[in-house]
This record gives sequence, structure tokens and C-alpha cells, in this order.
Amino acid sequence: MKKLILPLMTTFLTSLWALRAEEGMWTFDNLPLKLLKEKYNFTPSEEWLTHVSQSAISLGGCSASFISPDGLMLTNHHCARGQVSAVSTSDNDLLKNGFVARSREEELKVNMSIRVLHRMLNVTDIVNAAVKPDMDAKAAESAKDAALQEAVDAMQKSTGLSCSAVRLYQGGEYWVYGYETFDDVRLVAAPEIQVAMFGGDFDNFTYPRHDLDFMLFRVYKDGAPYRPENFLKWSVQGLKAGDLTFVVGHPGTTARGMTYSQMAYARDLTTPNSIKAYERQRRVLLEYGKSGEENKRAVQTTLLGVENGLKASKGYYAGLLDEAPMARVKAREDELRARVNKDDKLKATVGNSWDQIDKALEITRDNALLMSLAQGVPTPLLTNLRGAVAQIETGDAPPPPRRPMVDRPDLNQMQLEAWLQELQAALPPQNSLVQAALKGQTPGVAAKSILASAMNDESARKALIEGGKPALEAASGDHAVALAKALAAIILDGQKKQIDADAIIKDHAARIARARFEIYGKETYPDATGTLRLTFGPVSTFEANGTLIQPFTTFGGLYDRYAGWGGNEVYAYDGAWSLPQRWLDRRHLINPDIPLNFSHSVDIIGGNSGSPVIDIRGEVVGLIFDGNITMLPGRYYYNENNNRGVSVDARAIIETLDKVMDAKHIVNEILGSGARVSANQRRE
Amino acid sequence: MKKLILPLMTTFLTSLWALRAEEGMWTFDNLPLKLLKEKYNFTPSEEWLTHVSQSAISLGGCSASFISPDGLMLTNHHCARGQVSAVSTSDNDLLKNGFVARSREEELKVNMSIRVLHRMLNVTDIVNAAVKPDMDAKAAESAKDAALQEAVDAMQKSTGLSCSAVRLYQGGEYWVYGYETFDDVRLVAAPEIQVAMFGGDFDNFTYPRHDLDFMLFRVYKDGAPYRPENFLKWSVQGLKAGDLTFVVGHPGTTARGMTYSQMAYARDLTTPNSIKAYERQRRVLLEYGKSGEENKRAVQTTLLGVENGLKASKGYYAGLLDEAPMARVKAREDELRARVNKDDKLKATVGNSWDQIDKALEITRDNALLMSLAQGVPTPLLTNLRGAVAQIETGDAPPPPRRPMVDRPDLNQMQLEAWLQELQAALPPQNSLVQAALKGQTPGVAAKSILASAMNDESARKALIEGGKPALEAASGDHAVALAKALAAIILDGQKKQIDADAIIKDHAARIARARFEIYGKETYPDATGTLRLTFGPVSTFEANGTLIQPFTTFGGLYDRYAGWGGNEVYAYDGAWSLPQRWLDRRHLINPDIPLNFSHSVDIIGGNSGSPVIDIRGEVVGLIFDGNITMLPGRYYYNENNNRGVSVDARAIIETLDKVMDAKHIVNEILGSGARVSANQRRE
Repeated sequence: MKKLILPLMTTFLTSLWALRAEEGMWTFDNLPLKLLKEKYNFTPSEEWLTHVSQSAISLGGCSASFISPDGLMLTNHHCARGQVSAVSTSDNDLLKNGFVARSREEELKVNMSIRVLHRMLNVTDIVNAAVKPDMDAKAAESAKDAALQEAVDAMQKSTGLSCSAVRLYQGGEYWVYGYETFDDVRLVAAPEIQVAMFGGDFDNFTYPRHDLDFMLFRVYKDGAPYRPENFLKWSVQGLKAGDLTFVVGHPGTTARGMTYSQMAYARDLTTPNSIKAYERQRRVLLEYGKSGEENKRAVQTTLLGVENGLKASKGYYAGLLDEAPMARVKAREDELRARVNKDDKLKATVGNSWDQIDKALEITRDNALLMSLAQGVPTPLLTNLRGAVAQIETGDAPPPPRRPMVDRPDLNQMQLEAWLQELQAALPPQNSLVQAALKGQTPGVAAKSILASAMNDESARKALIEGGKPALEAASGDHAVALAKALAAIILDGQKKQIDADAIIKDHAARIARARFEIYGKETYPDATGTLRLTFGPVSTFEANGTLIQPFTTFGGLYDRYAGWGGNEVYAYDGAWSLPQRWLDRRHLINPDIPLNFSHSVDIIGGNSGSPVIDIRGEVVGLIFDGNITMLPGRYYYNENNNRGVSVDARAIIETLDKVMDAKHIVNEILGSGARVSANQRRE
Repeated sequence: MKKLILPLMTTFLTSLWALRAEEGMWTFDNLPLKLLKEKYNFTPSEEWLTHVSQSAISLGGCSASFISPDGLMLTNHHCARGQVSAVSTSDNDLLKNGFVARSREEELKVNMSIRVLHRMLNVTDIVNAAVKPDMDAKAAESAKDAALQEAVDAMQKSTGLSCSAVRLYQGGEYWVYGYETFDDVRLVAAPEIQVAMFGGDFDNFTYPRHDLDFMLFRVYKDGAPYRPENFLKWSVQGLKAGDLTFVVGHPGTTARGMTYSQMAYARDLTTPNSIKAYERQRRVLLEYGKSGEENKRAVQTTLLGVENGLKASKGYYAGLLDEAPMARVKAREDELRARVNKDDKLKATVGNSWDQIDKALEITRDNALLMSLAQGVPTPLLTNLRGAVAQIETGDAPPPPRRPMVDRPDLNQMQLEAWLQELQAALPPQNSLVQAALKGQTPGVAAKSILASAMNDESARKALIEGGKPALEAASGDHAVALAKALAAIILDGQKKQIDADAIIKDHAARIARARFEIYGKETYPDATGTLRLTFGPVSTFEANGTLIQPFTTFGGLYDRYAGWGGNEVYAYDGAWSLPQRWLDRRHLINPDIPLNFSHSVDIIGGNSGSPVIDIRGEVVGLIFDGNITMLPGRYYYNENNNRGVSVDARAIIETLDKVMDAKHIVNEILGSGARVSANQRRE
């Protein structure tokens, strides 16, 4: 097995560009060792880092880790629901009932591909050398792309690994990462979804929490369990408040490199617009649900999706509105600009980049509302028709036809009517979209007229596309077609403007990023890009809801919430806080004081789900599965006061496997041959 | 026993002045029966109302109730801590250890006086008749005061009750309330303070909560247990989510009759000023605490008090900043003004009252900051000296000398220095207070010079007062005396302005209130005045911390929080979430699913503490002891979305007495002779 290349660099933090204590999604080649040493008196050895990084697994969008010599893999329940659902049968819903393979033979192959990082090669110099002095910006980017691809191909050829180009610091560094991939992954154990997501979507992005959000798989190679050179041992001690934790995983995307004006644009336009759209959808779905229990059930899933989107958007919005951290974002930017302006060379290439981005934002600002309204049309008929119109007018293939999640005439009418009302309230009456949409009618009448279109049929839309412009012209008396034309016009124009703006923003964002990199170097970490990172911080409380939040929850707390909502008989909020019968029957076996979830000061983001939480020994003490509600602004900045990761405690996984799932053989495999659940597994 | 006079009036709510569903601290003569009937299909009988109201007790600042035929009285632990502390001995701290009287003889007499309302007489007509046409406003008020006092004296004479004047709707109605008073009150049972205020000041004003905030007393008359005609039965069923609850008690003060501009004044000036002062104090105390464990302990109590004041102020402030409900306050006021202006007679007397109040606010606006700074001086030496100066200059007796809670030279220096820094930051350097305070020195040097005053000694201050103006003049070289003179000048001037402003505000606030009363009549409820009220609403969840909050907590939740903070070994945050040993030893006896606290939509405020929570049968289901953090804006308005009362569940009190306090004899008395804790007491 190849060794991971890890040049241990010590990072010096300047006081001006000071990071918050636990801020940072660090690449393994550039860890803030000085900070770790000073604040936690811990310096990871090269062996520690190699061991930890090579035990980490990417699922693409989620993270995981090896936790036994026989290729046992730990990840989140919510990271593999689709795959497990796909191997369920009509007799046995594995998500609902949970699953334990009693032998290797019972392990269920799922459709999953995973990869493990084995090689990181910094090719920045090679890539930058491809740029010749006479090249303009576009030619330079092409040359760099070509050089980077060449480096990828070369590593792929020489190592046989699956290699990817990695662009960090928005072009401050270029790397080639080489992965070993595995396609034979089998389900070993999963608890019931009702305990894996206890509290349902209500509790998503929150803490205190009581979720057993884990699944266990086994990775196979050549038909046999894979025996990884590196896997994480399970902690016997367990954590206590204040203990340092590390999270090794694959955070997806952050936007901390955005300029302040881009964040302000998100704050003033795009985020409130999307909140408004979510709120409209939510209002309609709630209203529809009030018309009967069956209707309520029918829209339940859609409603939860909308509420979750709304919750996330409101979380981002709260972050963008929070004055103190936003002032810090601004101050950092001002400092960077001042330093750029002091350097003649940088000033020439980056000096006006912030202004250029501001100008680019102006290109789309005026029709941001119109675009948001046009793109937010809730009626698949109109979305599909609009695609057809665009195809006729541009020749581009339309996106695949959309079908409504719940297709009911009365609901479609309510949704479209609400959208038309929003249009009417947001735009002047003479606006061409309003004209095409309402045709002088009330929203109710207009919605009816639109939904009665002859184009509801997919074949009619196909015929329209085949008939081209003459057919479109002939059908323009159809209310829906006329509205689709207006929508297409807005969206085609808006997309064009967006492309123009994006080109400018991309260019100047990269210049700014490179200037930042040039000035501060690797004192800081790159925005998340789905690549392997390490973040760290202690188990900790935070202020919320008027008090300090307990760092751990326990199994006792799970039953407290169950009872506090009235138990399974009451089934409040569609059973969000109900429990599977087995968890009631076996309750007396469970030690109520065993920690279930905990909150810790780590800098994580979507993609970190399933990441192992390890202690300074490199042993598994938990499993990241969420963040608290005040973690959402982490998209834009890190706030040490209230940004917290939320994890399943490793002891809860053992207790669940042992006491509820009757899976002592898995417990033994995790704890090591012959090991048993000792008293030390309990919180002392 | 006299019957309470209860003319049952049905209230009709207009849609314009619509109350939120559960809004209102209603007097018993004017309950919203139509709303109760329509929304909850419940109409209390006259007997129900008499029974409930005469079972209610006022402790003056807290509420209570009779719960047995032998005068057992239920109230909050936090309502009687001072009294119980006073009967503790050096051997036995009753707050710390808890207490149970094993017999009547062991019941401990405490220094407490209580009263029970027996008579309510509406004397509005008599009072208003005292006003003659030729009287000006001042003479009219005097005449009314005299007539009201006459009515009080008459009832007192005829009934032998202790009678009080009650002014409701800011003068829309005048009543005489007649109370029976009792002075012989004896402690029967109290749990340990650590479970009565589990979570300490951190958890104050919050929910979910786990507090056994109750005490039991017995009321005696003529040396024997008092046998009240009315006492509340204990519920056998218990509550579940959605059940209607009533709270009968004595809410202290609300300011919902304030004009919008008065609330804006509080929002823009007084509340942020007091937050700033609290934050300064907090910062200094935290800083001082960092200098050593002993120092930290010394300021712990002071710090918690400051943090609690800060929490309350921030809660009010959040309410004043909350746009939607504040817009509703404004809309209500606009509607009232419009209706006043449509009525010539009202327009003549009230039409310009809002403008007059605005003008009155201007009298104090300019020196609000100066007053806040001058009154916020943290140094008792200066407060005492300032009183001495004022006495010399005005002849008025100064307030009793203040002593610092923690008197340490290094802490006094830090506090004064921080105050001087705030002065320096808030005022221009040529300001006379700044000049007198700093004398051109840095805050550190100036603080030292001030604290070195010859006037630290009380006898020196006494000599100063006796020496009068010449002595003051002679001492003016003393830095502290000079500063005290400047402070006295500001405060005397500010107080004068405040008196002028208050006179105008009082007059016009009463005019507005009477106009409101004339237009809307008794469709609404009067601001809280410490008199008996009824409020009602269901056990309910609310949105907080990103999710929905469980309506009940349980004993299991108590142990969850204990363990989640690491148990007694860790003793996090000075033991806020620790438990007495007895609660660990007897844990196995306690049913973890018994509800401990619950949240309900009722309109309460300080003074309601200790109020019984009853169900539609009039039986005790709980005990009010707090509200959630979003209840604090209830001072200004009621927000149905998130204003919640927080109560101890009646079942938790029984479980505690039975399983932990070994007080089966009290359980039997509460549940009725021969009754026992049945399975029905459990949540089904």
C-alpha cells in the first residue's frame, strides 16, 4: 500500500487574519500544528496522520471510515437510505425494521462505490509553468487546465489509482489526488429509521438530539472482505466534556471566499427570495392538509422537504443578518484590500477585482426577483412547456420532463393560484409576465384556465416541439403556452446575464483568492471542495434557547422526549418522536446514562456526514451526523460561539448493537477479537 | 364566609381589536366566556368561579392556593426562600437539605402574611360622581381619590375585611377588593433547592425545564389549622398535550397600555442603556473571576444576579425589536386614534394625548444616557456620597447607605475603572461629569484616586452632612466628593425632569386608557395590577432552537440533563445541573416517565409564580413557576406563537413527596383521606 505524502508544515497565524480557535477545514498537508500544540498541547505524529487519513472513506457527498481489520465501514444511516431501500423487499422494509447480518453470507450487497485517498501530489508549479507570458487570461486558464489534466493522467498511469484534479484556494494551489476505489459494499447492520432519525425533519439541524444515525457496511475486494492496512480502533474510554475531538472527512462546499458584496447580495436578494418561495409553498401545503386527513398525509413528505429547505435558508439568512460576524467578514476583506493596494504588482491585477465583482452583480440584480418568480413556478406543466418553448427558440434540448410529487388537480390549482397571487403582489400590473399569466383575470380564474391547457399531455408537447415555431405560434392562444413563452423569455434572458456575470465573478474571485493566498499563504485553509480535511475542537456547550445546552444527551433523554410528546399512543406530529416497539420492550436492558449524542466545536459542513470523530489516540469516539441550527451560517463564516457539530456517541452505537439489535458478534468485531462491552464503556 | 360577587358578563370581541387566542389576564367579573365556549366548548359555572377564586391566595408578589380542607397551601419554592432560610439553623440548612414536617407539631412557623380575596365591589360610578363640572384635572383626581378612599373605608368597616382600592383600565374602572388576611403560616414540606431550581439561574426563563419548584405550608387561624370553605382538589387524571389549563393568580405589572412611542423609547434608550450597564458589570466580574478560584467563588452570586438581569433585559429588548408584534401594537394604537378622532368629545379630551406623551418623552430623552451612567455608578462610596451631597443641597434625607455585595479593593477598582472607561467612551471629553470623574487622568489612575477618598468612612460622611454647605465646599478637593457633586447635580436635574414628564404621561396615559375603555369597553382585560386574574390555554409546544419543543418533560429528562453535564463528579457551572445524593440513591424508586414540567399557552407575568394550574374540573394539575425566554416580551404584548407559561406537573409533586421525601402522610392529605397514589397518577 502506498504511503500518503504528508509534508508536515507548521502554520503561523498572524493576529490580523486570526482564525477562531476551532475554525478550519484543514488539508492534511497543512495542519495548524502550532495552534494545536499551543491550545491543546497535542502534536499528531506522521504515523497518526497517515493512519487517520487512510482510514477515511469518501462516499461522494458523505464520509465514512474503516473500523475493523475485516473492512467494516461506519457511516450515517442518512447517507445510505436510498441504497438500503433498494435492497428492501415488500416483506421487509429494512429502513423501517432495521437489519443485522447474522453471518458474512447474510451481508447484503448494495449499490455503492467508495474511495480511499492514497496519494496527494502538489502540482502547482507544473501547472503555473504552463502559462506563457504572452497568454491572455483565457488562454492561461486553458493552458493550466491542460497541464493539470496531464498530471492527472500521469499519476493514473503510474499508480493505477483513480486520480482527480484538485483546485484549492481558488487556484492558489493545484493538486492531483489518487484514490483506491471499491464497488463491492455490503450492508452489515442498520437500526430502525425511527431511532436513526428520531425527531424527524423537525430535529434536523438541531441539538440537543437523540439520533442513532449510523449504519455499518463491509467493503469487499475480489469477493472477500477487504483487509485495510489502516482502520480506526474503537475508544474504550469514551469522551467527556472538554475533551479534544478530531473529525476526518470530506466537507462539500463552503462559500467563505465570497466577497462581502456577494454575501450582501445573497442576504438582500437571493436568500429572502427563496425564503419567500418556500413560505408560499409551505402555506399552500398546510392549507391543503387542513382539507382532510388523507390530503394531509399525501403532502406530508413534500411539506417536510419544504420545511427543511426553509429551515436551512432561514439558518443561512440569520447568519447573513448577524452583524458581528458579518462585520468580521468585512474587516477581513478590508484588510486584504489594503494589503493588495500596498503591493504594486497585486494592485495592478487584483486592485479593482472587488469593484468588478460588484459591477457583475449589477448585471443580474435588476431581474433577480423576476428570475426567482419565473424559476419558482410550482406547476410542472409550465416548467415542461417552458422547456419546450426554449428548445424551439434555441435548439437546445430541454431538461427531462418534471412530474409533480403529488399530482392532484385541487392542489395544483392552489399552488398555481398562490404563485399568481405572489406575482400580482410583487410586480406592477403592466409587467409582461403578469399580463401573460393573468390575462386580466383573477389568480383563481387564471390558474384554472392555465391548468386546462391542451398541453398537459406529454405527446402534445412533443408535437409542439416537432412543429417548431409555426406550431408554437399556432398554439399561442393556449393560456399555458402563452405564459410558458413569457417564462422562457425571462429565463433565457436571465440565464444569459447570469453567464456574463459568472464569467467576470469567476475570474476576479480567483484573482482575489490568489492574492489572499499570496499574502497569507497557507496560514489559512481552503474553502471546502469535497476533499479530505481534518477539523478539531472540544466537546462543548453553547448558548441557546436562553440557557446553556448540555454537551451530551443520553438514552434517558431519548425516552424523556418520547414520553414528553405523549408516547406512541399520541403519535404527535406524525410520529416524529415515536419509538419502535423493540425499543420499548428492551428499554430495561439499556443503561439510561450512556451518552447518545454530543455537541462539539468543530468546523464541518454538508459532506462531513458519516465522518468518524476520533480522539487524540486516533480512536473512534463518535460519528458526525449533523450540526446545530447556528452551524448553518458556516457556509459563509465560522462562528466559534455557536457553530457546533452534532455526533452519535460511540458508546451509544455499542449499546444499541449489544442491547437492542442482538449483534454481539458485530460488537466483538468492532471492539476487537475477544473484547467485550466492559464497564469502561459506560460513562463514569 | 362571604360569597364573591361575580356578575357573569359575556364578552364580545370585535375583529379589529381581536385578542390572540390565549391572550388576557382576566378579572373574574369579566371573563371572555364567548371565546372560552367557542374555542374550548367550556363555560365555567358561577360555583366553579367562586370555588376557584376563593381557593386562590396572594402572598404579595407571589401567588398560592389552598389544596386541603386543613389549610394546606401550595406555592413555589422560590416564593418563600427568604422565610425558610430565616428558620434554618446552623445545623440544618432547610433550603439545601429540604424539609418535611412529620406531624403538625413539627410544622415550622415562618414570617409570612397571606390574603384571600372575598369581596369585589365596583365603585366606578361613585368615584366618577365625585367629580364636579368646574373641577380642573388635578382637582378631579383628588376628588376621585377621596371618594375611592371613602369606599374602601366603608367596606372595611362593614365587613371587617382588609380592603384595598383597585384602579383598573388606568382609571376606566375603580373597585374595592376585600381580603381576609392570615399571619400564621407554617412550613410543611420543601424539596432541596438543588432540585427546586435545577439548572440554576442559567435555566431561569427557559423551557424545557426540570424543576420541582414547590413548597407546602399550612395556614393557621387562632392557633389551629384553618379550614377554608374552598380548596382545590388534586387531579387524578393529570394533563396531556392539548388539554385546556387555567391559571388563577396575581400577575404583578404589565405595560401593555404604553403608547407605541413609550415602547420605542424603552427600545431605543432605556433598555439598551441597561443592557450596556449589565454587560459592563458582567465583563468586570468575569474578568475578576479569572484571577483565581477563590475570587470566582466570591463574585458568583453577584454574577448570577447580573446575568439574570441581563437575560431579562435582553428578553424585553428582543420583544421590543420584534417587528411583527410591534407592528401589531402600532396598528392597534392607530385604530384607537382613528376612532378617537371620529368622536368629537373624545377628540377634544384625548385627541392630542399621544402627541403630549411624545413631548413629555422629549423632556427626558436628551439626558437619558447621562442619567443612566450617573445612576449606574458601581461604587457604593460614590452612591452614598452623592446621597450626602443631595441632602446638603435639598435637605431631603438620603437613602440608607449602600454596601457593596463583595467589598474588595481590587474588585472595586476594576468596577470603577470600567465605569470610567464607559463614561469616557460615551461622552465628550469636555462634559462636566467626565471632567469631575477623570480630572484629566486615565480611568485607572482616577479610580485609584477616587477610592482613596477620606469619605470611605461612614462617620466622615455623617460629619460632612452635619457640616452642610461649608463642609462640602471645604471637602471639594477630595476627588470622590467632587465627582459625587457632579453626580448629584445630574441626578437631581434628571429626577426633576422625570417628575415633570411623568405628570404629563400619567395624565394622558389615563385619558388614553379611558378612551380605550369607552370605545372597546370590557372587550379586553386591564393591565396587570397584582390583583386576582384568570388566564387560560392549552398544554402546547412552541418553536425554538430550530425545532418543536416537547410539551412535557419527565423525571427521565432530569437525569438525562444531570448525566449530560457529566454528573456530580464534574460539577459543571458550579453545580447548576448537579443532584442531591438522595435523588441518586432513590432514583430506582422513581418512575422516569412521570411528567415533571410542562409548557402551556397562558398569559402570565411576574407575580403569577405559585399560581395553581387547574383543569376544567377545577382540579390542580400543575403549579406555575416560570415562563419561557420568549415570554419576557409579555411585559409589552402577548405573542401567541411563543409566549408560554412553565409549570411543575402535579404528578411530579406527588411522586417527589411519595418516593423521595417519604411524605406519604402529606400525599394522603393532598389526595384526600384514604386516597393513595394510584396508577392513574401516571401518564397513560
